[in-house]
Amino acid sequence: MDGFERLDAPAEEIAAVAVTGTLYGVGMGPGDPELLTVKAQRILMRAPVLVHFCKRGKRGNARTIADAILRDPAREMPLAYPYTTEIHPEHPDYVAALAAFYDDAAGQLADHLGAGRDVAILSEGDPFFYGSFMHLWRRLKDRFTVEVVPGVTGMSGCWTRAGTPITWGDDVLTVLPATLSLDALTERLRGTDAAVVMKLGRHLPKVRAALAAAGLLERAVYVERGTMAGERVVRLVDKADDDAPYFSMVLLPGEGRRP
Amino acid sequence: MDGFERLDAPAEEIAAVAVTGTLYGVGMGPGDPELLTVKAQRILMRAPVLVHFCKRGKRGNARTIADAILRDPAREMPLAYPYTTEIHPEHPDYVAALAAFYDDAAGQLADHLGAGRDVAILSEGDPFFYGSFMHLWRRLKDRFTVEVVPGVTGMSGCWTRAGTPITWGDDVLTVLPATLSLDALTERLRGTDAAVVMKLGRHLPKVRAALAAAGLLERAVYVERGTMAGERVVRLVDKADDDAPYFSMVLLPGEGRRP
Repeated sequence: MDGFERLDAPAEEIAAVAVTGTLYGVGMGPGDPELLTVKAQRILMRAPVLVHFCKRGKRGNARTIADAILRDPAREMPLAYPYTTEIHPEHPDYVAALAAFYDDAAGQLADHLGAGRDVAILSEGDPFFYGSFMHLWRRLKDRFTVEVVPGVTGMSGCWTRAGTPITWGDDVLTVLPATLSLDALTERLRGTDAAVVMKLGRHLPKVRAALAAAGLLERAVYVERGTMAGERVVRLVDKADDDAPYFSMVLLPGEGRRP
Repeated sequence: MDGFERLDAPAEEIAAVAVTGTLYGVGMGPGDPELLTVKAQRILMRAPVLVHFCKRGKRGNARTIADAILRDPAREMPLAYPYTTEIHPEHPDYVAALAAFYDDAAGQLADHLGAGRDVAILSEGDPFFYGSFMHLWRRLKDRFTVEVVPGVTGMSGCWTRAGTPITWGDDVLTVLPATLSLDALTERLRGTDAAVVMKLGRHLPKVRAALAAAGLLERAVYVERGTMAGERVVRLVDKADDDAPYFSMVLLPGEGRRP
């Protein structure tokens, strides 16, 4: 569009462009509200629209972290996933339902942003590290101003509470989703100095088997709800059951150079 | 020691045991002072002894992040490394000099802790992720109460400022020190979905060569001083020189599932 055309544009359209809201992706940290950053706190206190993801009929974990700060329900906009663990993520129905869910949510956020309202999306851990935020970001980033606030990751919270450094000297760290096959997990665990296995859920028996096959079971630590209420830290060999809630991971601490 | 013996211990010795200070490892985040956590800020404002690592004759980077908070030089205790890049980390002289340095520093900190003074060690990024803090923690953890405050890692700061999510869906992330051999770097880059290459320094030409050999050069992003003054983000193919300061890394963003 050239400058001449803009002269014909109605004044309110020009004004609307100028007052478009900013989309914030706010890292909420691993769980302890004191592990929010100063910047995250500032944005949460100010943004008129606060978005969090949740399971249908439940409260989102990212939202719970903000309990101490947020007192005005009028600002809140929960987005309930159509599925969480009910259907396999590679299933076409899952992909289609999630795509529609993100499209619809992005549309709702675009309405707020277009009307000049800043929107903050609460993201567990760090927004750009396996975050649902990324799916809305991808749909909105070319139309609106975006600012991402990095957060303390869940894995940092877990190795801190386990009381173990994860990497020393020149250790290689591998972050693995537990959804990989037994063979892939075993090979990758064998080939790294340190590891974090995320997204355990029903995959914990397989992760155990992979660690055993790689000869690493003795070194593994299981952490559940790190930095949160109900936190549990235990050597994996000492964990009798195979229950692993959403907020759990297995750590394989590195053993590198220690002058 | 049984209870009877304790009755003979001088009163001041019993009191000294009771008032031993706490050793804090405080994650300072990636550089922007607003990315300190609320908890880190609280501890920094209160601890009577604040320790930071630095190069001889220079100010430490972790210390600079705290500029806005710390105004009392009497609390500060800089620890100057005997070497930084002057000698190879695998060289026996380097290992011996660093071990002596950490032993001596741990002794000084133990004096403060034994006298009941809390000591906070300022750690760039996250204390348990490649942190120098770990070498003092290892020497003091069995004698004193320790509390570690996780921080936003430098890599989170860098991928945030690069405006690119690092992992999607079931992506595997590999964190690699650039000190690895060309062959090892190439093989590991080829075998991962996403990567962060740290500790670039003089190794940038080798990292470039490994990315090229793995057919991944086009996807790589170079970030220098992410979230700090003098920040620079550029595609690695667009970076003409091979200069890479301490605070720089190469990112290989993942391309996983995006419903």
